[in-house]
Order: sequence, then structure tokens, then C-alpha cells
Amino acid sequence: MNRQQLVQHIRQKQSFLCVGLDTDIEKIPIHLRQTEDPIFEFNRAIIDATHTFVVAYKPNLAFYEAAGMSGLSALKKTLDYLRQFEVLTIADAKRGDIGNTATLYAKAFLDPQGEFNFDAITIAPYMGEDSVKPFLGYPDKWAVLLALTSNKGSADFQFMEDKATGDKLFEKVLKTSQQWGTPETMMYVVGATQASMLTTVRRIVPNHFLLVPGVGAQGGSLQEVCKYGMTKDCGLLVNASRSILYASSGTDFATKAAEEARSLRDAMAKELSAIQ
Amino acid sequence: MNRQQLVQHIRQKQSFLCVGLDTDIEKIPIHLRQTEDPIFEFNRAIIDATHTFVVAYKPNLAFYEAAGMSGLSALKKTLDYLRQFEVLTIADAKRGDIGNTATLYAKAFLDPQGEFNFDAITIAPYMGEDSVKPFLGYPDKWAVLLALTSNKGSADFQFMEDKATGDKLFEKVLKTSQQWGTPETMMYVVGATQASMLTTVRRIVPNHFLLVPGVGAQGGSLQEVCKYGMTKDCGLLVNASRSILYASSGTDFATKAAEEARSLRDAMAKELSAIQ
Repeated sequence: MNRQQLVQHIRQKQSFLCVGLDTDIEKIPIHLRQTEDPIFEFNRAIIDATHTFVVAYKPNLAFYEAAGMSGLSALKKTLDYLRQFEVLTIADAKRGDIGNTATLYAKAFLDPQGEFNFDAITIAPYMGEDSVKPFLGYPDKWAVLLALTSNKGSADFQFMEDKATGDKLFEKVLKTSQQWGTPETMMYVVGATQASMLTTVRRIVPNHFLLVPGVGAQGGSLQEVCKYGMTKDCGLLVNASRSILYASSGTDFATKAAEEARSLRDAMAKELSAIQ
Repeated sequence: MNRQQLVQHIRQKQSFLCVGLDTDIEKIPIHLRQTEDPIFEFNRAIIDATHTFVVAYKPNLAFYEAAGMSGLSALKKTLDYLRQFEVLTIADAKRGDIGNTATLYAKAFLDPQGEFNFDAITIAPYMGEDSVKPFLGYPDKWAVLLALTSNKGSADFQFMEDKATGDKLFEKVLKTSQQWGTPETMMYVVGATQASMLTTVRRIVPNHFLLVPGVGAQGGSLQEVCKYGMTKDCGLLVNASRSILYASSGTDFATKAAEEARSLRDAMAKELSAIQ
């Protein structure tokens, strides 16, 4: 899915909601755990219930890898199932390795002939240019580079100031990586818990889409994110995971998930009215 | 495998060689590609031929993920096969994500009840403490944190100097992360192509084991690495991948791989004599 199509879907659905499919076998409602493939059955029910309010789904690879081969098989089935909907699919994989290895990670997740065939993948910047560039070679696909993350540990290194320029590490990542990709091929991860930093981020990357985790369970505010991060093309994908997936632990989990997603969509539609 | 056992194996085998199982389906000898599981058959032949010269094997996850479900199944079979040998197994996965996700990555790769059950996993530091700590909770298992990598892109961010302290980013990673783990639970990745920096690294982490890629195909020198990086316990795992795996593309690939491994072991034995 290219940028133009993504912007169009956001306008049509009046939503820039990304649902993080952090599907935890231990949090799946009990009645589903008896089925042959609980992880996939849960994902399918969540997707069916929410897709009209959603422009992107973001499976978190850790949850599937932790369930072993059956988890990875459920991931593949989830991707196959998602293909019928016009949604962006993001592998939340945070990969990053030297050039020849990065080429294989890109193949694993983005190759149209591959088993997963995601539209986008999250990438870590520590290893620099050759660890990122191989993800930029697939037409209409995206590399989503970590800039400023939503967790406590983001304070350990991401705010370190460059002696030469005064830039913080996350600013240097934003500046340097713009030589590698364009707003048509790259997005950045900026946590909602860091909303006050979005003004700084937007000064460096005025046009790139930002993938924003941290609204909901992690405490970030949608209004703050939009105030400081929204562009004329929206420019935001705001992710919610646990608050939607586990809105109820009963047989009504999908209905409750849909209510949460609809409520976020309504709040997003209101924010979008400001740029239309 | 704990530190004491690792040091003992190094002494017994007179080797600190780690073989990177970067098994590329397109580089496997043609006669093996007809078998039911070429990736596993190749790995098994390499392991059989080299294990007496080797203290660790390091499958690079990208190569298995790029081969889809069958690649991951071959990885699992490889790990199961390795269990009969007294070798350290390292998942070269370079994972890094927020605390609850890191906990699941740790489970995926280190859990003794899990499908993979590695002894160690490589980790990226960008997201800080909560992205690393969950990997430190498994007895006799290891987190191997990226510090200074062997690739060209390492220059992009890892040498950025801290305005407050003058430390380079990789030095800050080494210093900060010592508050998280000990020489019994953490190792660091330091590329052999950066051998001149090993004196600096050893000033900060005098006792930690270093996993050193970049000898061989990437051009690093074993002698330089030992000169600046070796400790009284050896303190080094030097990795070679392509130079061993693809020493020959013919039916004699395993014999040639063994010759390469033996030759590296001989060079290592010579270096080890200096500390005995």
C-alpha cells in the first residue's frame, strides 16, 4: 500500500487507528482456548469486529515467536486472512542487522512471494545505514524506523546529546535516516508518551508518517499526539493494542473490542475534521 | 551453559570459535538441495564436521525467517540436534522491544520449555533497560548486547559523542548496561573490524565475554582481536560464518568446512597458550 492509498483510506474511514495484534495465548478468552488454533481464531474475530474502524494492523512478532511453530503458523494465517481487507499490515519486528542479513529480514517480511508479505516492518537504527536500506527496496512497502520510543528505557540512550551538534540521539536518527528513505518509503516510531517531543520531531520530519504507540494502556493522549503531530495528510498512525484486544475477557470480547475501536475512530474523526 | 562451563570448554578444546550458521538456501551445495530439508541437512553436516573445533554455534535468525515456516522448522531441528554436543547456542536475533514484549522474546528463545531453548540471544540496546532486563532472568543463559558492530553503518550512531561525558554511544551502552547484568549473564558484541577499539572496550568491561564477528569474510584479524581483547579467562568468542560454511560449494563442503574450523582452532590454541 503506497502513501496515496494510505491517505485515501484514512479519509474514507475517518480513522488513523492501527490495532496492535499483541495476541497473548494467556489472555485469550477461555472459550477460544479449546479451538484448534486459538491465536488465529482470536485474531480473526478481532479483525472481523474492528476492520471498518481501522486502517492498519500490527502483529507484534514476539507474541507469535513465544508460541513457537504454532504461533508462527497462526501469524501466517492471520496475514492471509487480512489480505481481503484494504488495510496496511505492519510487522512489529524491530529488526536490525548488517547489510546481507538485513536483506534477508526484508525478504522474510516484505517479499510479495514470501509467506508473510507484510506492507511494512519496524526497524531498529543502532547499526546504521546498511541495516536499514535493504528494507527500502520493495515498491509500495515501508520501513518504520524507531526514533523515540514509548517506554521508560527510552531515556537511557535516545536523549543522549551529540557533542558536535547538540542533537539528541533520536534527532540524529531522524536527520541521518532522511538521506536513506523518503516520506513515501519510511515512517518513524514516536511514542505517544513523548507527545511533548512531537513538535521537535515535526520540525525535522514535517511530512513523514509517524507510527505512534502508547495511547491507551501506556497512558498517552490522542489529543496531544494530534495537536503536535498531525499534518495536512494526517501523517499519523496511532496504535492501540491491549485496550482493544482485551476490552473484555468474556465471550463478548469481539463486541467490546469493536466498541473500543469505534470510540477511538470517533475521536480520530473529530481530530481529522481540523485538516479537512 | 554458565561462564565456568564455557571457560572450561574453551580450555579443553583449545578453541573459542563460534560458527555462525548463516545457512543460505541459495549457497547450499546442489546435491543437498534435492533432500527433504536442505537447510537442516546442511547444518547437520557442518556441525558433525566442525563440533570438535568449536565452542559455540550461532544461527542467524534472518536466514531461517527468510525461508518461511520450513526455515523455522529447520532451525528447531538444528537446535534439537545441537543438544547432544556441549556447545553454547546463540540466537543471533538482535531483538529489542519494550518490557512486556522483551519478556516474550526471552521466552521464545531462552525458555527451557520452549521450542528453541537457546543458551544466549543477541539484543539491540536502543530501547534501554526494560528492553534488555527480561533476557537476564534465565539461569545459566546469556544476553549478548550490541555495543560496537562490525559493519559500515556502525559509524552512523555508535561513535556519537555524549556532550555531558565525552563518551561515545557504544561506550555509554557498555557503561550503562553493566548496571543491568553481570559478566555471568551478559556478553557484548564487538566487531573484529573495530579491533583498535578493543582497548577502550576492555577498559570499560575488563571481564565480560565479547562475541566478535567480522573475522574472515568481513576482514577482521584474529591476532589483533586477541592482542587487545583477550582476558585471563579468554573472554572471547570469535565468530566465523561464510568462510567456514561455504569453504567449498561441492560435495566436499563439510570436509573443507572442517579444515577451515581446524585451522582457526589451531590459530586460537596458539593465542590461548599466552594465558596458560
